[in-house]
Amino acid sequence: MGNFKEDIAKVRAIVLDVDGVLTDGGIIVTPDGDFMRKYNSKDGYAMSLAQRKGYYLAIITGGRGNCLKVRFDAIGIQHVYMDCHEKLKTLKQLCEKLDLQPEEVMYMGDDVPDLEPMRYVGMPVCPADAAPEVVEASRYVSQFRGGEGCVRDVIEQVMRARGDWYKEGDEPIRVASR
Amino acid sequence: MGNFKEDIAKVRAIVLDVDGVLTDGGIIVTPDGDFMRKYNSKDGYAMSLAQRKGYYLAIITGGRGNCLKVRFDAIGIQHVYMDCHEKLKTLKQLCEKLDLQPEEVMYMGDDVPDLEPMRYVGMPVCPADAAPEVVEASRYVSQFRGGEGCVRDVIEQVMRARGDWYKEGDEPIRVASR
Amino acid sequence: MGNFKEDIAKVRAIVLDVDGVLTDGGIIVTPDGDFMRKYNSKDGYAMSLAQRKGYYLAIITGGRGNCLKVRFDAIGIQHVYMDCHEKLKTLKQLCEKLDLQPEEVMYMGDDVPDLEPMRYVGMPVCPADAAPEVVEASRYVSQFRGGEGCVRDVIEQVMRARGDWYKEGDEPIRVASR
Amino acid sequence: MGNFKEDIAKVRAIVLDVDGVLTDGGIIVTPDGDFMRKYNSKDGYAMSLAQRKGYYLAIITGGRGNCLKVRFDAIGIQHVYMDCHEKLKTLKQLCEKLDLQPEEVMYMGDDVPDLEPMRYVGMPVCPADAAPEVVEASRYVSQFRGGEGCVRDVIEQVMRARGDWYKEGDEPIRVASR
Repeated sequence: MGNFKEDIAKVRAIVLDVDGVLTDGGIIVTPDGDFMRKYNSKDGYAMSLAQRKGYYLAIITGGRGNCLKVRFDAIGIQHVYMDCHEKLKTLKQLCEKLDLQPEEVMYMGDDVPDLEPMRYVGMPVCPADAAPEVVEASRYVSQFRGGEGCVRDVIEQVMRARGDWYKEGDEPIRVASR
Repeated sequence: MGNFKEDIAKVRAIVLDVDGVLTDGGIIVTPDGDFMRKYNSKDGYAMSLAQRKGYYLAIITGGRGNCLKVRFDAIGIQHVYMDCHEKLKTLKQLCEKLDLQPEEVMYMGDDVPDLEPMRYVGMPVCPADAAPEVVEASRYVSQFRGGEGCVRDVIEQVMRARGDWYKEGDEPIRVASR
Repeated sequence: MGNFKEDIAKVRAIVLDVDGVLTDGGIIVTPDGDFMRKYNSKDGYAMSLAQRKGYYLAIITGGRGNCLKVRFDAIGIQHVYMDCHEKLKTLKQLCEKLDLQPEEVMYMGDDVPDLEPMRYVGMPVCPADAAPEVVEASRYVSQFRGGEGCVRDVIEQVMRARGDWYKEGDEPIRVASR
Repeated sequence: MGNFKEDIAKVRAIVLDVDGVLTDGGIIVTPDGDFMRKYNSKDGYAMSLAQRKGYYLAIITGGRGNCLKVRFDAIGIQHVYMDCHEKLKTLKQLCEKLDLQPEEVMYMGDDVPDLEPMRYVGMPVCPADAAPEVVEASRYVSQFRGGEGCVRDVIEQVMRARGDWYKEGDEPIRVASR
């Protein structure tokens, strides 16, 4: 493990848990027994911008259901693993498929099932309100809570370190309902 | 009433109110007149883990409706009492059915209808934002508010006291959408 | 205007605005163009208890729609005025119908359309996050914000002043999904 | 750029972004893949009042969908541009159509796609939780966050500066569900 500023500039893939990271952990149950989640528009903007600039974005979640699929389809995320309960195994397969070294991967998780994949990557990060074990295992703890812009924060950190973050005059990006 | 650390290690059943405990007390009314509630994924994870490790989980609530049933079915909670307005009576029946002594039961409530069952059990607990009478009647007040992880907190306290909490390398558990 | 403690004990009718009082002001718009609101279970409990003990409860709101009606039907509130834009006129009609003097009425509002009815009653009150003019016009400002228990707080204040608040051993009340 | 108090009194058009301004940035995804947003009743009241007093209100958003259209139809906003990814171009067209000079326009945005239109107008403003670049580019930063009354705050600032804000005794306005 080297210098943080140098290491964050090595990241070219961003892997995200959903509940507690892209959301505040809230799961709204509908009368029909479906689930709804609330996402954050600033996170969505950063994910869209990162993809356009050539970063890999991936989702690995134990959750499932249409309200996950719809969101990630809208943003155009190509690597989405739902209903996934062996996160480390899935992460390794993803790295192999995309020819990624662990030090090129940032993983953001919030709870104990994320610990194994976080130990594997070079840049484990978490929201302000992650479980204590996860905070302990992280190289960077966002000041933002899950669902309140923590994903935007870490993507922006990576992109600024590599000089890719939005500059005024950049061509606008199209984000499906953000 | 003995030493807190000793007493919490006696708990093998966790009984929960819903509104204000598993939620922030919010009830979203749909245009069709149904109700929706927002649960917390960290609470869900802890309930699933506790059940797998052999704890009894039970819900006793004055609420009713599909958005309650669906959530608890998904987590696989076997003892769910909805539309229940005599909570103490129901709790006693549950204890008899499962052959539980009051000191083996933790009850988490947030409002005055929970006072009677809280007086009955050995380990009455509440969220940070419970009604003052309920705070007064509790042996432990979580730092987390209803719907923001207070259930996770108290389940984790019990399981750590008994050495059952998640350890890295534990087999992953399957939580239906958490 | 007399002593606060004496005056609050005169209240036998509680009149409530909806948006920003019984909710945090949030209006969720569905894909079908309907509106949803999020209510608070502790508020619901207090409204049910107050009605059972013989208080008049009334709602006067500029809002309309099924998600209002359903909620107040569930709690059994008899005096509900929706789509109401002349709040003072409506309040006066209500007082006449129920033979109430202004000093027997508590009115809780959060925004400038509530100022006129608040000037009329003996006990104008508001949530912590009411508009500054409304705070100025109130005899009591709850420490709780709209939708976070401010209605529970003021109903409890009235009922405690009159010795009607919940005591352990009271017969349980039935609240439709709280 | 002149004196703030003088400049804010020149405003006769208020142009608003949606996500993060009229909402907290939250996008709730339904099981059918639709989007829901949560608006604030105090913002709605101020928008309705401003329109009745002759201000121009406009929405320019990258988002789209029925839950946007419905909300702005209900309030009666005439100038709504959805699915808009070239905000500056759209803003200029609006100014031309309504014969507005940049110094007569207030623009409230929260994120980097809002920077270009904010540079164009005389009165760029933002919510408390806007992106740092947007805070930097603003002449006024509301103490309120997106979706928590920041739009109400800035509309009220303009209307007070021009003597148009609500006075007791004003004829009530009709706001469709606020």
